[in-house]
Amino acid sequence: MLGGSCTYIALSASYFTPTSIVGIVGEDFDAEDRRFLTSKNVDLDGLEQVPGKTFFWSGVYSADMNDRTTLRTDLNVFADFQPKLPRAYRSFPYLFLGNIQPALQRGVQGQMNGVRFVGGDTMNFWISHTRDELIQTIRNWDFLLINDSEARMLAGEQNLRRAAQKILDLGPNTLIIKRGEHGAMLFRRDTLFMVPGYLLEDVFDPTGAGDCFAGGFVGYLAERGFDLRNGSFDVRELHRAVIYGSVMGSFCCEQFGVDRFRTLTRQEIDSRFEEFRRFTEF
Amino acid sequence: MLGGSCTYIALSASYFTPTSIVGIVGEDFDAEDRRFLTSKNVDLDGLEQVPGKTFFWSGVYSADMNDRTTLRTDLNVFADFQPKLPRAYRSFPYLFLGNIQPALQRGVQGQMNGVRFVGGDTMNFWISHTRDELIQTIRNWDFLLINDSEARMLAGEQNLRRAAQKILDLGPNTLIIKRGEHGAMLFRRDTLFMVPGYLLEDVFDPTGAGDCFAGGFVGYLAERGFDLRNGSFDVRELHRAVIYGSVMGSFCCEQFGVDRFRTLTRQEIDSRFEEFRRFTEF
Repeated sequence: MLGGSCTYIALSASYFTPTSIVGIVGEDFDAEDRRFLTSKNVDLDGLEQVPGKTFFWSGVYSADMNDRTTLRTDLNVFADFQPKLPRAYRSFPYLFLGNIQPALQRGVQGQMNGVRFVGGDTMNFWISHTRDELIQTIRNWDFLLINDSEARMLAGEQNLRRAAQKILDLGPNTLIIKRGEHGAMLFRRDTLFMVPGYLLEDVFDPTGAGDCFAGGFVGYLAERGFDLRNGSFDVRELHRAVIYGSVMGSFCCEQFGVDRFRTLTRQEIDSRFEEFRRFTEF
Repeated sequence: MLGGSCTYIALSASYFTPTSIVGIVGEDFDAEDRRFLTSKNVDLDGLEQVPGKTFFWSGVYSADMNDRTTLRTDLNVFADFQPKLPRAYRSFPYLFLGNIQPALQRGVQGQMNGVRFVGGDTMNFWISHTRDELIQTIRNWDFLLINDSEARMLAGEQNLRRAAQKILDLGPNTLIIKRGEHGAMLFRRDTLFMVPGYLLEDVFDPTGAGDCFAGGFVGYLAERGFDLRNGSFDVRELHRAVIYGSVMGSFCCEQFGVDRFRTLTRQEIDSRFEEFRRFTEF
């Protein structure tokens, strides 16, 4: 079925801003999925389609949905992916770099001109196997968005507060740590923001929730025209972006795969945003 | 050293309201500890001292402080404890029943006249071994304060939101679920409130943190003269009480045993309360 972090990030961000993706698929990529993404205002000019099969992943979740075991990962056409940005993409102001080799992330950033807010994701594999390359890459990011165990691993420090300080020393001025059902945190030198996880009645499928968080976070900032680099900005916009990230992650879990995005409306999103306000205000 | 849930609850509550305890100790109870509690405005008229040794517990925490292994539990004089309330205590408006056999908790509540807000704690042992007795006991409580695994066990339901609804059906109109470093949640039919955990730079000793939460929660409501039973009350006072509970739990972890309470001031408490506001507002 349709999946992949690029898909989730773009679908989630598309509720806030037109979104363009760069990725690669094989000949088996479904025309229906292409229509679905296009119908959501996702620009596919940067989606390469080449001979071979599309990346494939399958896994099994534990009963409490907090752990998963990979059953199969087939890189397929993804193995030799060299992202190339269409000319029109190069002047876009917001860039989110999905989880891939840090060198490729750096390569994409190098193709951009005058980007206003750039950051991305990574994972344990790159932290342990390509550490120097990763550190060189995130040095030029405005934000890094990872989960708590990745933050601990990257910093070499168990305590999250101290780990966050160490990561901010590596370059990004903003660090967002996702904690799954336990919410998320945003760290900067001048601010700390925390949000509890949204309490779902049923967690149907958490696949993609972290990516939907990323899409909501960057999508909201793009919608607001947030500009970190013009000197004066409202840090509370970053806090609200974390809430929208949490909102999008929570919706993602409600149905299988990307299915929730087939019916989800902006009105539902905004009303869950207000729900977050109600249940955290005192 | 000085410990026990009654001690932690009373010390924590004492920052908000005069507190009176009912408990039992042996001949070995240190006069210095008695002086310390009295200096904190904790009334010890209900503290029985009898021949024998005081209850003793020791344990070891995991590296991340989220798990602990009991090394030794000696009930000693606690084994035959039959709580008796001094006459002056019987008309107090706020009652917190610490973790003990549900039948004894019920016995204490039965000795009270006109209590305005009553609730308490329990643990996995009573949930599995004296389930009927426990359910009969909490039926008459205004609030139940337990941790997430106990809530799941009591409700027989893995999903916390559904578990909470089942527990509210058992009698208490307010359920507070503690989640350790991940914060706390308050459930009522008319409201849901969530707070993330305070992010400590160092967790020195989490022993007693849950009890300090309880003391801060009830202590703050007592200070405010909160009255659930007069028909109209501000539910946001309950939310603030959850914050004060979290504040007290976080301070407890900063030093060994009860040591943090030797120097802690109300000003530090209120300033951490404001910190919670700053880092959750958006």
